[in-house]
Amino acid sequence: MTHNTFGHLFRVTTWGESHGPAIGAVVDGCPPGLSLTEADIQPYLDARRPGTSKYVTQRKEPDQVKILSGVFEDERTDGPRTTGHPISLMIENTDQRSKDYSEIRDRYRPGHADYTYDAKYGIRDYRGGGRSSARETASRVAAGAVARKILGEDIQIRAGLIQIGEHMVDGENWDWDEIHNNPFWCPDAKMAPIWAEYLDGLRKSGNSVGAILQVEATGVPIGWGSPVYGKLDSEIASALMSINAAKGVEIGAGFASAMATGVENADEMRMGEDGQPKFLSNHSGGILGGISNGDTIVARMAIKPTSSILTPLRSIDKDGHEVDIITKGRHDPCVGIRAAPVMEAMLACVLADAKLRDQGQVG
Amino acid sequence: MTHNTFGHLFRVTTWGESHGPAIGAVVDGCPPGLSLTEADIQPYLDARRPGTSKYVTQRKEPDQVKILSGVFEDERTDGPRTTGHPISLMIENTDQRSKDYSEIRDRYRPGHADYTYDAKYGIRDYRGGGRSSARETASRVAAGAVARKILGEDIQIRAGLIQIGEHMVDGENWDWDEIHNNPFWCPDAKMAPIWAEYLDGLRKSGNSVGAILQVEATGVPIGWGSPVYGKLDSEIASALMSINAAKGVEIGAGFASAMATGVENADEMRMGEDGQPKFLSNHSGGILGGISNGDTIVARMAIKPTSSILTPLRSIDKDGHEVDIITKGRHDPCVGIRAAPVMEAMLACVLADAKLRDQGQVG
Amino acid sequence: MTHNTFGHLFRVTTWGESHGPAIGAVVDGCPPGLSLTEADIQPYLDARRPGTSKYVTQRKEPDQVKILSGVFEDERTDGPRTTGHPISLMIENTDQRSKDYSEIRDRYRPGHADYTYDAKYGIRDYRGGGRSSARETASRVAAGAVARKILGEDIQIRAGLIQIGEHMVDGENWDWDEIHNNPFWCPDAKMAPIWAEYLDGLRKSGNSVGAILQVEATGVPIGWGSPVYGKLDSEIASALMSINAAKGVEIGAGFASAMATGVENADEMRMGEDGQPKFLSNHSGGILGGISNGDTIVARMAIKPTSSILTPLRSIDKDGHEVDIITKGRHDPCVGIRAAPVMEAMLACVLADAKLRDQGQVG
Amino acid sequence: MTHNTFGHLFRVTTWGESHGPAIGAVVDGCPPGLSLTEADIQPYLDARRPGTSKYVTQRKEPDQVKILSGVFEDERTDGPRTTGHPISLMIENTDQRSKDYSEIRDRYRPGHADYTYDAKYGIRDYRGGGRSSARETASRVAAGAVARKILGEDIQIRAGLIQIGEHMVDGENWDWDEIHNNPFWCPDAKMAPIWAEYLDGLRKSGNSVGAILQVEATGVPIGWGSPVYGKLDSEIASALMSINAAKGVEIGAGFASAMATGVENADEMRMGEDGQPKFLSNHSGGILGGISNGDTIVARMAIKPTSSILTPLRSIDKDGHEVDIITKGRHDPCVGIRAAPVMEAMLACVLADAKLRDQGQVG
Repeated sequence: MTHNTFGHLFRVTTWGESHGPAIGAVVDGCPPGLSLTEADIQPYLDARRPGTSKYVTQRKEPDQVKILSGVFEDERTDGPRTTGHPISLMIENTDQRSKDYSEIRDRYRPGHADYTYDAKYGIRDYRGGGRSSARETASRVAAGAVARKILGEDIQIRAGLIQIGEHMVDGENWDWDEIHNNPFWCPDAKMAPIWAEYLDGLRKSGNSVGAILQVEATGVPIGWGSPVYGKLDSEIASALMSINAAKGVEIGAGFASAMATGVENADEMRMGEDGQPKFLSNHSGGILGGISNGDTIVARMAIKPTSSILTPLRSIDKDGHEVDIITKGRHDPCVGIRAAPVMEAMLACVLADAKLRDQGQVG
Repeated sequence: MTHNTFGHLFRVTTWGESHGPAIGAVVDGCPPGLSLTEADIQPYLDARRPGTSKYVTQRKEPDQVKILSGVFEDERTDGPRTTGHPISLMIENTDQRSKDYSEIRDRYRPGHADYTYDAKYGIRDYRGGGRSSARETASRVAAGAVARKILGEDIQIRAGLIQIGEHMVDGENWDWDEIHNNPFWCPDAKMAPIWAEYLDGLRKSGNSVGAILQVEATGVPIGWGSPVYGKLDSEIASALMSINAAKGVEIGAGFASAMATGVENADEMRMGEDGQPKFLSNHSGGILGGISNGDTIVARMAIKPTSSILTPLRSIDKDGHEVDIITKGRHDPCVGIRAAPVMEAMLACVLADAKLRDQGQVG
Repeated sequence: MTHNTFGHLFRVTTWGESHGPAIGAVVDGCPPGLSLTEADIQPYLDARRPGTSKYVTQRKEPDQVKILSGVFEDERTDGPRTTGHPISLMIENTDQRSKDYSEIRDRYRPGHADYTYDAKYGIRDYRGGGRSSARETASRVAAGAVARKILGEDIQIRAGLIQIGEHMVDGENWDWDEIHNNPFWCPDAKMAPIWAEYLDGLRKSGNSVGAILQVEATGVPIGWGSPVYGKLDSEIASALMSINAAKGVEIGAGFASAMATGVENADEMRMGEDGQPKFLSNHSGGILGGISNGDTIVARMAIKPTSSILTPLRSIDKDGHEVDIITKGRHDPCVGIRAAPVMEAMLACVLADAKLRDQGQVG
Repeated sequence: MTHNTFGHLFRVTTWGESHGPAIGAVVDGCPPGLSLTEADIQPYLDARRPGTSKYVTQRKEPDQVKILSGVFEDERTDGPRTTGHPISLMIENTDQRSKDYSEIRDRYRPGHADYTYDAKYGIRDYRGGGRSSARETASRVAAGAVARKILGEDIQIRAGLIQIGEHMVDGENWDWDEIHNNPFWCPDAKMAPIWAEYLDGLRKSGNSVGAILQVEATGVPIGWGSPVYGKLDSEIASALMSINAAKGVEIGAGFASAMATGVENADEMRMGEDGQPKFLSNHSGGILGGISNGDTIVARMAIKPTSSILTPLRSIDKDGHEVDIITKGRHDPCVGIRAAPVMEAMLACVLADAKLRDQGQVG
C-alpha cells in the first residue's frame, strides 16, 4: 500500500474529491476472462449510497458507475469479459451543492483532516473534505466488486455493525440475512429498533457516536497470505485502518485474546466428518502464521463518532485565532453505518490480491 | 509491505530461521552521513534478548549484531557513518540445541503456523518454528535501531505492557521510567509484582496468557503520513499486526471510540502558551486524516497467549491422525513481554519511512 | 514499474484502449502547490496528436485532456494548484470509426501484440489494437506535462528524430529549434525534405521504416538516481523501452562506447570559468554510477518500422490456418515520428521521480 | 526495481561493498520445494570469478557462497529444498589488500562514480569503489542461480561477447559451446585469439576497450511479460542497464530495426511441422507487445571501456583542484568480459519474476 494505490498483483488506485467532477478507481492486475458489467458493480454502490435512510448523510447521488476500460465484448465472449488490462471505473459527482464555505475555509474542524492537510500540503480543498471525504470510499466499493469476481461465488464476504455506542448485538440473535432488513447493517433484528431510537436521540441533540463492525469471509481456502510482512492479518489491518474514521482493527478473538489463557485461546483440531481437518474453535479468525487456515476469516473494526456535529467545539483558524465551530451540513449520526460495504470491499480486495500472489509463488 | 520487505523509501528486508546459521536484515534507503555503530544497535537487542528473566524463553544467545555493509569510516568521518547504501545486519544463531523434533515434525501445534505452512508450501522447517519463530523479530529490532537514527533524538519511542490477562496497569501510576525496572516492561511499579505472581502461577500450571502493549512516540512533527492508503494509522496497523502473535491494533482511543459520542471524542484545539496550536485531548492518537498532527502518537496491540504450553491439546498430524500435543521446550508464559522492543522498532521503522516519504513529496 | 503503473514517489498509472470511451492517467505523489491547468498539458498532446501531417496516422481526434481531480482553486491560490492528491487525467476517444474487424479478429498481424495477447489472456480487444495501441501514449504525454511542472523551468527536455532508415541527421546542422519547423521532429533543416521524399516513396509502395530518436535533458542537477537497481540509466532504459515499438535504448555514447578505448571514452574534468567542475566531453550521457553528474542527460531509442503495412505478409489465424495479411487503415509510414513527444514525457516522468526520491533520501 | 531491490514476485535485494567483510543477496518470493544447494550456485560464481585469466582483474578470491536461510533438509526432502521463505546468500570478501588510498580518496577518477557519490551522499567508500564496485555483481550471479532453478532445465540462458572494440564475431562461426573454451565468453573460436592479441596490446599501452554482449534464452513459453510498463523488453532493459558500465541495451534486431523497412523487419508466421505456430525470423527478439512469443529471447548490451586505466587523465579533486590521475591496481583491459555471467543472471531473474507474475495473474 502506498499513497493512493493498494495491493500488489491485484492493485487498486483511487482518485477524486468530493466536489470535483468525478471520482474513480483504476483496477490493475485483474485476471482475464471474467464476466464483468456495470450491473455487477452497481448493487454494491447502491448499498453504500448516501441518502438511503435518515441515518446516513442526505447527499443524494445516483452513484452510477461507468466502466471505461479493461473489458471487451464480441459475439463470442458471451457478454463483456475482463481483458487482463486496467479496468477504469468512474462515478460522476452530481450533487455538489453550491454552498458558502467561508465558515470552514480557514477553520479547522476537530476530528477532520483540515489541520493536518493544511500543515502538510499548504493547500486544502475544503469543499466536502476534498480527498478526505467519505465519498472516496465509493471508489473502493466499486473496486471491491471486481475483487469479488476474482474470488468467485464460493467465497462469501459479509459485514455488519455489531455495536453502536454501548449497544451491542446479541450473539444469540445473530443472523447475517438480517443485515439488509434494517438501515444499520445489523445482524440482530432485536437490536435494530434500539439503535434507531438511540440514533434519533443523538441527532436531535446534535451529537454522534462510534461503532464496531465485523466482517467475515467464508470459503477462503488454506494457504493465502505470506509471512512475514505480507501476513494476511497485516494486509487486512492495513486495508481496514485506511477506511475513514477507523481507529482499531482486530482479527479473530482480537483484544479479548489478551485476557485469555493459552488453554482457552487454543483452536484445537480434529478430523471432520468430511475427512477434512477442522478447527474446534476460531479464536485465530481464520489466520495462522499470517496464512489462511481454511476457517472463516473474521475481523472487526472500530469507527470513531462522526466528527461533524452540531454541538459547538473549540478550535483554531489558519491564522491561529481561537474559534468555536459548529459543522452544519448533511451528516451521519453514526458514520460507521456507511462503512459496512466499504469494509466488505476492502476485505475482498485483500483476498483477491492474496489469491493471485499465492498463485504466483506457489502455483 | 510485501512478503519479507516492508517500507517504501526506508525499506527493511529480513531473512533467517530460528535454527539456521544466522538471521538478519538488509536496511535500504537510509540517508547518508548518520553516525552508526554496532553499539547503537546492541542495546535494543539486549533488551529483547531471551533468557534475561524467568518470564521469557530460556534460550541463551548473545544476539551480537554485526554490520556487514553500508557504513564507512576514515579519519575524517568522526566514526562510522552511513553511506546511503544498504546496511546489512547479521545476528548469528548460537544456541540451536540439538533436540529430537520427531514429536512435532508431523504434528500441528495449535496456534502455530505448522498447519498452514505445510498446507501452503508443502515443506516446513519445524525446528523452532523456522521462519515463524519469534526469533525473526530480532532482525526487526536491529533495523529499528537504524530507524531511530533517522528520526533523531527529538523523537522518543517507548513501549510497555499495560495489561496481562485481566490485570491492567493503573493510569495514575504510569511512569515510563519504570519500564526498565521490572522484567515486564511495565510502567506501573505496583502492578509489576502482581504480574510476577500471576505468571508464576500460570507457568506452574502449564498455561500462558495474552497481553496488551502500548507504544508512544513523542516529538513527531506535523505532516507525516499520506492519504489514503498510506495513512500513518494504516502503516502502523500493518507493521504491528505483522508481529508474531498480534491479533489487534488500535490508534488513540481505538475501540473505546466506538462507545464514545462525538462530543466526548472530539480533540478540541486552542493556542498553547508557546504560541503553537495544541490539542486539549488526544483521542486521535496523534493522527488526523492519516497524517501526524504533532501530538503524541499512541498505539496499542493485543498479543495472544503463548501457543506453546505444557497442557495437552487436541490436534492432528500430517497424515490426518488425531493426536494430543504437549509443546515442551523453553517457552514464555506471556510472549507479549518480549514484544515490547519489537513494537518500538516497528513504530520507529514506520516513522522513519514516513519522514523520508514526506520529505520526498513535500520537501 | 509494474504492469500499468510506473514510478515510485511520482507514480503514473495509465488505462484505456483505443476504441473504448476514453483513455487516461492517474498521477500520484505530485508535490502540492504547483500551478496546473489543462492548458499546461494540452500543448504536449497537440504535438503528439495524430492527423497533424500526412506522415502520421490520419485518425482525427482533438485529444482534449480533462483534469478530474487533484487540483484546487480559490481566490487565494492564484489559479488551480496541485493539492498533493492524485491527479486524474482523461482524454475521450472521439474518432472510433465503426469498421469491419472480421479480417483481423482472428488473424495475427505480424509485429503486433495480437498473437501474444491471445495466447496470454485468451481474449483480445482487436479494435485498433486495444491496450497495445499507440493511443495509450497520449496518457503518458499528459502525465509528462505534470512531471515537467515538478522539474521546473530550469530543466529543459527535448526529443527529436535523428535517423530514419539510412538517413541520419548531420551533427553539424543540429538545431533544436528546428524540431517544430518540420513534421518529423528533425533538428536538421536539410534532412527534413530528404525524409519527406523518402517517406512518400515508402508509403506509395505500402512499406514503412524504423527510426532513431534522441532525447536530451539540460539543467538536471547532480545527484539524481540511486544505485544499484534504481540507477538513472536503468530507469530511463525501462521507461523508453516501454514505449510502443521501441527495440533499443542507449545512454550517452551507448553502443559506440563498445568500440572506443578507455582513453577515448573518458570524460575528463576541469574547473569551469564559473568555478564549477565541468566535464570536457559527455560520453557518459550525464550519468555516472547511476547518478546524474550535472551534464546534459542524453539518451537514444530505436523504433522499429510500423508493423501495419499494405504489403501482404504471411501469418496464421487463431485456428492455426495459414493466411496472408494486409493491414488496411490509417497507418504511419514511420511510427517513430509520433514517439518524440512520448520520449520527452517518459524522460520527464523518470526525472521527476528521481528528484523526489533524492529529496526523500538525501533531503 | 528500486534502489537495491529488483523484481516483483521474485525479488532480489543485494548489499555489500568491495572492501567490507562480505557481500550478499536476499532472494525473496522463491517458490517452495525446489532443490537448492551451494553447489547449484557456486559454478556460476566460479565462472564470474576474478583472477581466472590474465584478461580479468587479478584480485584473487574464492567467492564461496553460503546459503544462510530459506532451505530445509530432512530425511524426507531428498536434499535441501527451498521453503518459500527468503534465501540469504553471503560471499565473504577475502582479498581486501591493505593499500594506500590517499591518491584516490579525494580525487575523482573519470568514468567512476566517485564524483557523483560524493556529490549525492557527501561520503564515499573509496576502497575499491565501495558499492559501485563490479564486485557487487557476484551477488547478482548468486541470485541468478536461484532464478534458474525456478525456470527449470527447459529454459537455457547463455551470454557471450560478440564484439570487442572493432572486432566482431562472425555469425557463420557462432557456436555457443565455444564460450567456455576461451577466456572471453566468445562463441567464435576464430575470433578468440584475435581478441587475445588485441587485449594484450591494449594492456601494455595502459588502455582498455568496450564490448558488446549478447544473451539468449531458449525454451521460454509464450505469455510472460505484462503491458504496458511491465513489458518483458522493459524489464530486461532495466535489468541489463543496471549492470556496471552498461551504456546500451537492445532487443532482437534492436538499433538495426531503425534502418529496416516494415517488409524486412516483419517476423512472418507459419505452422511448424510440429503443428505449432512458428516465426520465420526473429527480429522481435522473442517479444511482441511486451510478451514472450515462444521464440528465443535475444538481447544485447554495450559495455563501456574499463574506466581505470594506466594512462593519465585530467580530473579534479574534492576541493576543486585540477589534478592528473592514473588508476593503478588490478584492472581488466575489457570489463565486458566479466559481464557475461552477470548478464545471464539478470535475464534469469527477470524471467523468473515474469513467470511467477504470469502465473499470478493468468494462472
